[in-house]
Amino acid sequence: MHNILDIHLTQKILEDNDQLALHNREHFDEEGITAFNFMSAPGAGKTTLIIELIKALKNQFACAVIEGDMVGELDTKRMKDADINAFQISTGKACHLDASMVARLLHEQSFDGTDILFLENVGNLVCPAEFALGEHVNVVLLSVSEGDDKPFKYPVIFQKCDAVVLTKCDLLPHVDFSIERAKSFLKDLNPDAAVFEVVAGKRPYSNNQFDQLVAWLSEKGKSFQK
Amino acid sequence: MHNILDIHLTQKILEDNDQLALHNREHFDEEGITAFNFMSAPGAGKTTLIIELIKALKNQFACAVIEGDMVGELDTKRMKDADINAFQISTGKACHLDASMVARLLHEQSFDGTDILFLENVGNLVCPAEFALGEHVNVVLLSVSEGDDKPFKYPVIFQKCDAVVLTKCDLLPHVDFSIERAKSFLKDLNPDAAVFEVVAGKRPYSNNQFDQLVAWLSEKGKSFQK
Repeated sequence: MHNILDIHLTQKILEDNDQLALHNREHFDEEGITAFNFMSAPGAGKTTLIIELIKALKNQFACAVIEGDMVGELDTKRMKDADINAFQISTGKACHLDASMVARLLHEQSFDGTDILFLENVGNLVCPAEFALGEHVNVVLLSVSEGDDKPFKYPVIFQKCDAVVLTKCDLLPHVDFSIERAKSFLKDLNPDAAVFEVVAGKRPYSNNQFDQLVAWLSEKGKSFQK
Repeated sequence: MHNILDIHLTQKILEDNDQLALHNREHFDEEGITAFNFMSAPGAGKTTLIIELIKALKNQFACAVIEGDMVGELDTKRMKDADINAFQISTGKACHLDASMVARLLHEQSFDGTDILFLENVGNLVCPAEFALGEHVNVVLLSVSEGDDKPFKYPVIFQKCDAVVLTKCDLLPHVDFSIERAKSFLKDLNPDAAVFEVVAGKRPYSNNQFDQLVAWLSEKGKSFQK
């Protein structure tokens, strides 16, 4: 049907996006901002985790958040309620943030003095992987309630990321999820990715590596500052 | 940038898809097949639920499954291990099934004698809603571990469906999910959608409406048979 036109246009869209992402990255670097792109399936706990991370990082870094959602401002409201500087991007029918959406916001709003900018992508394990935003670091969340086969079934996003955060680990006793099986799929796809087992809220989990994740992000935050 | 071309092409792709979906639907109707399109975020439990549904329906209906995944055949293998007639579609980088993928399979494989065909879409709460496959009934799963705000945040897929299945309800004591809040969002979007609270496996849940879901699907299955 429309395959050849389709492939060419997809390529063109991705090339345009890459160029704009580069422009965003230059902007971040000039301003001394480290940008983290947080991606996951819907409901893996991105908003909750980012709020907890900012609480842990705010003595060291001035943090801000760009929230990507199809509609509404629920997550931005949650951020503001937690006294976090947050900006909403409504993607409408689009299933991911793209570099032009971020570029527009960067030109409309002031991020002066921001050290770390969290980009919370739309909940989706496929398309966000294809659209660079200008970020320095890509983090993928995988909730243990989603099943340990997800890296195998959605390989692109796990291949491209710098860290995988296994979230909601307090649910491990109640779901069929093998940390070892998930890690083994990840190792095949992306042996260099850091992996953290995390519970973001107050629920107990003996091997909670939240503090290690904070330290890792802090290190990344410092390494990209000018 | 490429917005106008983009919108026109998206429209053309969706129109082409709708036309092919119509062709699939005619094919299903000629063969006396009722097609259910099961959609959800990754890891909401589509495969597990479909296996359990087919066990419950198989005395009444000859069932088959088309599995949509980016890569691999993990779910098709799970189906075959449960003695279910299953066919894999690998979508590659695509984040949803489309009508042409289904049409191709319908022409390659025989679905003779099938009464009910389950189409298990790629795990994604955004794009599958835009691509009709020729199905008679759309079912969206929402795992309670994903949070009760998902219908509000991903409205298109919940607006277009005939039923919503709240899955993994055995996790309710361990997660922050209000059935009432989820139902209230759904009611605003789609007051006619049937809603079922379900645990698909052997875990206990006092208000398990799995049997009601089986009865509802069975009714749909009969109503579209010639």
